[in-house]
Amino acid sequence: MTNDTICAVSTAPGIGGIAVIRVSGPRAIETIDRHWNGRQLSSVQSHTAHLGTINDTDGQLLDQCIATVFRAPHSFTGDDVVELSVHGSRWVQRRLLELLTESGCRLAEPGEFTRRAFISGKMDLAEAEAVADVIASNSRAAHRIAVNQMRGGFSRRLASLREQLLELTSLLELELDFSEEDVEFASRQRLIDIAREIQREVTRLHQSFTAGAAIKDGIPVAIVGATNAGKSSLLNAILGDDRAIVSNIHGTTRDTIEETIELGDYQFRFIDTAGLRDTSDEIERIGIQRSRQAIARARIVIFVTDSTLPIDIDEISETTHANDDCNDNRHIILALNKSDLPDSRTEAPPIGLEFNTVHLSAKTGAGIDTLRDTLIRCADTEAGNADEDILVTNARHAQALGNATRSIARVTDGLTTGLPGDLVAQDLRETLTHLGEITGDISTTDILTTIFSRFCVGK
Amino acid sequence: MTNDTICAVSTAPGIGGIAVIRVSGPRAIETIDRHWNGRQLSSVQSHTAHLGTINDTDGQLLDQCIATVFRAPHSFTGDDVVELSVHGSRWVQRRLLELLTESGCRLAEPGEFTRRAFISGKMDLAEAEAVADVIASNSRAAHRIAVNQMRGGFSRRLASLREQLLELTSLLELELDFSEEDVEFASRQRLIDIAREIQREVTRLHQSFTAGAAIKDGIPVAIVGATNAGKSSLLNAILGDDRAIVSNIHGTTRDTIEETIELGDYQFRFIDTAGLRDTSDEIERIGIQRSRQAIARARIVIFVTDSTLPIDIDEISETTHANDDCNDNRHIILALNKSDLPDSRTEAPPIGLEFNTVHLSAKTGAGIDTLRDTLIRCADTEAGNADEDILVTNARHAQALGNATRSIARVTDGLTTGLPGDLVAQDLRETLTHLGEITGDISTTDILTTIFSRFCVGK
Repeated sequence: MTNDTICAVSTAPGIGGIAVIRVSGPRAIETIDRHWNGRQLSSVQSHTAHLGTINDTDGQLLDQCIATVFRAPHSFTGDDVVELSVHGSRWVQRRLLELLTESGCRLAEPGEFTRRAFISGKMDLAEAEAVADVIASNSRAAHRIAVNQMRGGFSRRLASLREQLLELTSLLELELDFSEEDVEFASRQRLIDIAREIQREVTRLHQSFTAGAAIKDGIPVAIVGATNAGKSSLLNAILGDDRAIVSNIHGTTRDTIEETIELGDYQFRFIDTAGLRDTSDEIERIGIQRSRQAIARARIVIFVTDSTLPIDIDEISETTHANDDCNDNRHIILALNKSDLPDSRTEAPPIGLEFNTVHLSAKTGAGIDTLRDTLIRCADTEAGNADEDILVTNARHAQALGNATRSIARVTDGLTTGLPGDLVAQDLRETLTHLGEITGDISTTDILTTIFSRFCVGK
Repeated sequence: MTNDTICAVSTAPGIGGIAVIRVSGPRAIETIDRHWNGRQLSSVQSHTAHLGTINDTDGQLLDQCIATVFRAPHSFTGDDVVELSVHGSRWVQRRLLELLTESGCRLAEPGEFTRRAFISGKMDLAEAEAVADVIASNSRAAHRIAVNQMRGGFSRRLASLREQLLELTSLLELELDFSEEDVEFASRQRLIDIAREIQREVTRLHQSFTAGAAIKDGIPVAIVGATNAGKSSLLNAILGDDRAIVSNIHGTTRDTIEETIELGDYQFRFIDTAGLRDTSDEIERIGIQRSRQAIARARIVIFVTDSTLPIDIDEISETTHANDDCNDNRHIILALNKSDLPDSRTEAPPIGLEFNTVHLSAKTGAGIDTLRDTLIRCADTEAGNADEDILVTNARHAQALGNATRSIARVTDGLTTGLPGDLVAQDLRETLTHLGEITGDISTTDILTTIFSRFCVGK
């Protein structure tokens, strides 16, 4: 499997003080030794760093560097690994890779080091995929989920589900084996209880993807309201002094610009929408349509109103609830803007909807901190208790969990309706397969190639 | 001097598989240990690497990483150094720096690690400056000069000049001490010979800056000739398939775009010029003026002519020699273009100027390889014998050498004209001072700050 030795620059592309070239495989140490002036690396202990120089093929000095040796199996990949810490010039990086490939190494494909770590049993597939998420994480919350997954938190949860499923299977098989003898080894109710418990957890994990993806990619926040309500100035007020660290992401629709900001442990993506209630009916229609699209993508909706005007509860209620099925448990914040004006009304509107109401002035900045805190509180609710609740952030995992949800639902139904045991066992095996796809107990070369091709080179 | 402990990301900015955070100073190891879960780093040997985890202040896992410990004085800076190899996410990098600064570390200024290496005597100033040049080098030749300087090649040459100067000083002082006793300890001619030898070498080093800077920054090549001679198509033909790796550098003048290309061991910067001999006299004047500016900046001039037309030797001679004083030893390549046309003349023009003549066709590509080889040969001449000849690439060093050239010339003159020994000794001391500025034997905090502020952070 790992007959060949691979190499890549593992640090960020470009010029830096130092760059790290990683070499992994059975001939990693001997290949470096061939160009190395310093203590012979084949004779040094694992986990030791050595100062030396690398010579080019013409005998000229290529660079002075530190070589750190990690011997199999005590390395990231499980193979012999040498990490060369060189001066971070583009030329040195390029020439060193040329030198290594001329000496029989192969340029690593994206994610190939992590793929080898998976193949050598250093980590399961869910843990390996979390490595990429750790690298891509851009907020404390996203990072925490990824690190927890990398350290096996999600995998342990899946392993415990697997154990329950295997217990269920063996109980069911006992029943099958002795079915003609009319002996009941476990009560049907006991089986149903176990199945329902699994179903609950699998469903919860599947549903956590909505929050997980939001936290991983930035929590989408739609700002809606009439054109003169002050949506844009409110957005600017929220971004405030942090404007400098804000990046503009051009959205999928041509005229949508998303602003991202870090508040608390989270990254938020603000989706600016066209104003509602414009002059002509046609424009109004388009405006509402756009807002609906923004709301459909949002986890949090800030409805901005002019607090000097009467509040139209029906409009708020209608606007903030997109007509999607499953996703309607989004957070609504009612921003009563223009609190600086004398006829601004401070009291919250007497409505039964679950609103967070913030009285503020985008102009003076009053109440903006409260709005920020409210956003963070909504995000906290999304994230749940990160220490205990696993959040799924990976679309592949969500898909497998969706399949598993349907299989285990059929198991519960089958047990309840008294379906023959062998048919129920079939659905149980399917559930196990779907969960096994996540950790890579069941995987194909194609699946692995698809997964690791999304990694960066050098990892 | 190094009472405080500094930290920085030493790898290129951005997202990568891994990032390296470097911590240097008396409290480097104890600071990491405070957040470290793994083998206690204060108890491990120097030059060993350890797998562990870093916890955030809230006790949550920040990252799994490799810590490599280098104990004073056996480190790059001479102080205790810990290098943390972490997952290369922006968030981890940022948070880890925050954590370290909260624990009493200071963010390193640009070049501060190298500055500490200089202060602790690990390298002299010329060697330290070469570290930045190694990182910035973009061709084999530029890299070779920088690595040679970093490894002390230039410093050893300066040390030997310094020895000769000290010998001269002591001989002169002996003469001064015993001047009234009419004893001559060394013949004046012997002193003059030594001074002349030093002067030759200092002058050569000073003059090498023209070639050194060209190789470091890319050898400037001006392409000149009449508008219809095929300058632009020739440039495209030279760039050829390498076009993809060519970067456009917008020059200082708005309409000049420079193309850079790597040929052989060198990087060349092509300066495209406005065509000569345009229709109106006014335009012609501007065209010639622009070409002159390009030629003044060039080390190599390619004069492109239409080989089906008669060659105007005077024009070539006048055009290719800019009216600058010292810099007129540039290489001239006469490109006889349009070799594909039937009435193209293949014979070289019978002139006494030192031309390289290449008969070629920008249209068919014939002769382009010969032109490339000629460019490389010209660059080889510029570079001299890299193994023996030191090339100065640093403007600060060139300035110091210019001052030293003038001082040592006064020494030679003074000895020749029989100037009093104490006056000559004064010029000798000045020469020593100027050379000492290069290696940092004589330096001020201001000079050091200026030099190291040009470094990247983390080096």
